[in-house]
Amino acid sequence: MKKRLAVLGSTGSIGRQTLDVVRAFPDRLEVTALAAGSNRALLEEQSREFKPRFVSVAGAPGYIPLHEIAAHPDVDLVVIATAGKAGLLPTLAAIRAGKAVALANKEVLVMAGEIIMSEARKFKVEIRPIDSEHSALWQCLQGESTSTISRIILTASGGAFRDRPIEALSQVTAEEALRHPTWNMGKKVTIDSANLMNKGFEVIEAHWLFGVPFDKIKVVLHPASIVHSMVELADGSTKAQLGVPDMRLPIQYALSYPERWGNPSLPKLDFARPQSLTFAPIDMARYPCLMLAFEAGRSGGTYPAALSAADEIAVAFFLEGRIGFLDIPRLLEHVLEEHRSIARPSLDDILEADTRARESAQRWCLR
Amino acid sequence: MKKRLAVLGSTGSIGRQTLDVVRAFPDRLEVTALAAGSNRALLEEQSREFKPRFVSVAGAPGYIPLHEIAAHPDVDLVVIATAGKAGLLPTLAAIRAGKAVALANKEVLVMAGEIIMSEARKFKVEIRPIDSEHSALWQCLQGESTSTISRIILTASGGAFRDRPIEALSQVTAEEALRHPTWNMGKKVTIDSANLMNKGFEVIEAHWLFGVPFDKIKVVLHPASIVHSMVELADGSTKAQLGVPDMRLPIQYALSYPERWGNPSLPKLDFARPQSLTFAPIDMARYPCLMLAFEAGRSGGTYPAALSAADEIAVAFFLEGRIGFLDIPRLLEHVLEEHRSIARPSLDDILEADTRARESAQRWCLR
Repeated sequence: MKKRLAVLGSTGSIGRQTLDVVRAFPDRLEVTALAAGSNRALLEEQSREFKPRFVSVAGAPGYIPLHEIAAHPDVDLVVIATAGKAGLLPTLAAIRAGKAVALANKEVLVMAGEIIMSEARKFKVEIRPIDSEHSALWQCLQGESTSTISRIILTASGGAFRDRPIEALSQVTAEEALRHPTWNMGKKVTIDSANLMNKGFEVIEAHWLFGVPFDKIKVVLHPASIVHSMVELADGSTKAQLGVPDMRLPIQYALSYPERWGNPSLPKLDFARPQSLTFAPIDMARYPCLMLAFEAGRSGGTYPAALSAADEIAVAFFLEGRIGFLDIPRLLEHVLEEHRSIARPSLDDILEADTRARESAQRWCLR
Repeated sequence: MKKRLAVLGSTGSIGRQTLDVVRAFPDRLEVTALAAGSNRALLEEQSREFKPRFVSVAGAPGYIPLHEIAAHPDVDLVVIATAGKAGLLPTLAAIRAGKAVALANKEVLVMAGEIIMSEARKFKVEIRPIDSEHSALWQCLQGESTSTISRIILTASGGAFRDRPIEALSQVTAEEALRHPTWNMGKKVTIDSANLMNKGFEVIEAHWLFGVPFDKIKVVLHPASIVHSMVELADGSTKAQLGVPDMRLPIQYALSYPERWGNPSLPKLDFARPQSLTFAPIDMARYPCLMLAFEAGRSGGTYPAALSAADEIAVAFFLEGRIGFLDIPRLLEHVLEEHRSIARPSLDDILEADTRARESAQRWCLR
C-alpha cells in the first residue's frame, strides 16, 4: 500500500525536493494533499502532476486550514515544509491524529519543543527530522537508546564568511550572504547559516528531539558538510552519518523510514578519489547568534520563541539593507533582554511571545 | 545478574584487554573460565585475580578442551581471543550451545565462514565481532537491515610502510615491520597489517559477517585510524563509527551489547582541537596480499583457509629472517596456485586444506 502524503509548504525548497522523492517512487508514495502560501503558479503545476485530493492555497477561496489537512483520515504522513510559525498548528494536529510527521520546519521545535515532544510521546508519534543534521543524528541513533547519548556533535559549515576577519563582517551585504558555499536553500536560512543562527536553532531542535541537555551539545566546524553530524555514546563510541550534501536524502529517509530505498538519482560519496574531512572548534566570539541560541535554550520558557521571532524580523530588515550584518545579533540580544519569559508556556503564551518579540525587534530597527 | 564469561586466549593482547573491561564492571561481568596456550605465569596471575571456576592450560595435566569450556552451562558469553585455527572448534561449540559469541579470532571466519554463519543462523546466535573494523560496521548496522547495504568501506591505516617506495619494500626487516604506527598488537597481526594481508582477512570476515558480496567491499586508506569503518546503505546514506584507536571499546561493546556502558577509562575523541581525517584510494599494486585475499574470497571453497594457513608460515619465516618482506605475497600466490580447493567444504576439508597449505608453504620456503 502506498503512503499517502500531505506536503505542507510544497512550493518551497524542501517541498519541491519532497516531490522529487515522490517522483522517484510512484509505487510507494502518493500525494493526497498539497498546500502552499504564495507561489500559486508552481502549486497549480504540482497539482496537475500529482493530482492530490486536496489543494490548499493560503488565503484563497475554499482555503482548507493546514491543521485540517494534517489530521485528515486519508493522510498517513505529513511533511511539514512550511516556514516560520505556520508549521506549529498543523504539526500538533498531525501528532494528535497519530500521523507520521516529517518535520523540516525548524521553528516548530524552537518555539514549542516542550509541547510538541510531550504530545508526540503521548500519541506515540515519532518526529522524523528532515534537517540534514538531525536526520544524521536520528540515523545514527537507530538501534541505540537516546539515554546512552553522552554528547551530540553538530557539524557546521561555518557560513559564507568563516574565513573573513571579524572586523570586516560589519560590511557584509545581503547579496554576499546569499551565496552559501554548499547548500542550496531559501534566503532566510542562508542568512541564518552565515551567522550560525541556524546552527543555534538546530542546537535547540536537537535538545528537544533527542532529550539531550545543552551542555552535551557541541558545535564543530566542518566546512565540507560531508559529515552531517555525530553522536557520542556512553562507552565513547562515536557514530557519524555522511553523505554528499543533498536534501533529498534526509527527505527520502523521513518518507521511507524505517526502510531504506535504493534511489540511483541520489549522489553517493566517492572514495575513488582522496577525501579530507576537517573539524575545528568553533570560535564562539565570532558567532554571537550561536551563543544567544544556547542562552535562550538554557533559559527555556518563551525565550527561544522570542529569539526565533526576532530573528525573522532581523533577517528581513537585513535583506532590505536597513540594518547591517552585525546588527542582527545586537537586535536579538536586545529582544532577549527585553523579553519577559513564561515558564512551561502554553501555545497561546508562545504565540503571544512571538508577537511581542516581533514588536520589540521592529522598535529596535526603527529606533 | 552478571554475565558469565569464558575468555579463551586470556593471555594474548585481546584476552588481557578483555579482562581490563571485566575489571571496570565487577557488578556486570564475571569470569567463569580462563584458557591460554603458553603464558602460564600470566594465566596464574589472572586466575588469582578473577577466581574463575575453570582454568585451562593447553597441554597441561587436567587440561579441559576449549570446546567443552565454550559449551559449559555456567557460561553465558564466550570470548574467542585465541589465535589461528585454535578458535574454530570452540566457536562452533559455543554457537551450538546457544552462547553469545564475541569473536576476535580472524581465522575462524576466514577459514570456515560459511559453516560458522550457517550454524549461527541455525542456532540463532549473533556473532559479535571484536575487530575494530567489524565492530564499527556492526555498530553502524544497528537498527538497519543488512539487506540494505550497498557498500562496505573498510578503512586501512596502510601499514607501517605506506609512504615507502615500492622498490624499497624488499629490504624491510621484521624489526621495522613490528613498529606499527597506531595499534598495539601481536607480532603476527602487525606483519599482516604492514602488507595489508590483515585487511584482506578482514574483507573475507566482513563478507561472511554481513553477507555482502566481495565487489561491494571497498578498502580505503585512512592513516589516522579514527574512522573504524563505514557502511553505505541503499539510499546513499553512509554511516561511520569513529573513536580513538583502543581495542577495549569494541571488546566492551561485544560484552555490553545491546547495551552501552559508561566507562570513564575509555578515551573519547577530542573535538576541542582541530582534526583532519583523510581517505585515499588503495594502490592495489602496492598490496598484492590484499589482492590475493579478494581472489581467495571470491574463489571460495578452501582457498581462504589455504591463504590463512600459508600466511602463518610465511610470517613465521619472515620473522625469523629467512624470507624477505616481498616473499610473503610470492609464497601466498604459489600456495594458492598449488591449492586444490573443495567447494562447500566440511570442517575436515578445511582442516585438511590448512595442513596441505602449510606443507606447500614450507616447501616453498625451503626450496
